[in-house]
Amino acid sequence: MGIIKNVDLTKKANIYFDGNVTSRSYVENGVSKSLGIMMPGEYTFGTQKAEHMEIIAGKVEVLIACGDSNWEEVNAGEYFEVPANCSFDIKVLEITDYCCTYID
Amino acid sequence: MGIIKNVDLTKKANIYFDGNVTSRSYVENGVSKSLGIMMPGEYTFGTQKAEHMEIIAGKVEVLIACGDSNWEEVNAGEYFEVPANCSFDIKVLEITDYCCTYID
Repeated sequence: MGIIKNVDLTKKANIYFDGNVTSRSYVENGVSKSLGIMMPGEYTFGTQKAEHMEIIAGKVEVLIACGDSNWEEVNAGEYFEVPANCSFDIKVLEITDYCCTYID
Repeated sequence: MGIIKNVDLTKKANIYFDGNVTSRSYVENGVSKSLGIMMPGEYTFGTQKAEHMEIIAGKVEVLIACGDSNWEEVNAGEYFEVPANCSFDIKVLEITDYCCTYID
């Protein structure tokens, strides 16, 4: 956990769903990532690049549209991955702190 | 605006008021700062160090407990400052993206 060194941080927030999901974009060693917060609720996101979603704190259930059609519970310390050009539904059961890595 | 280069970013979010205020701490050139989001509502914060609060987007009204006793409107592109060991009440009128600098 701790501190992520020497990143380039975008000052302006990304705000989705009336602020119920917000994130901060940064670049670490040339890799685009974001740190975000999701308030409890249900959301659908589309992907352009593939995404690795690490749940830092909180609890979600996720259904990946182009994967097998099962809801999967993802807890703090766990992650899920979403292919490029796909979408996922997410049920945020507790306020959730996450780190998203965009995969080329 | 744009990109803040070469910062050390704390991975875990700061979460206040049930997630209605969240922030990300970082250090830029040895100076502690945070980027945060406030959802509409009214909040009271105490300060330890003095704070320079830049409103990146949104709109607030602020009352600084140890300053003159007037509510001041602060809009996007503006800032307010709070002395150390003080407190301030803030009415967030629109979802607000801010940058806080802690002043030694």
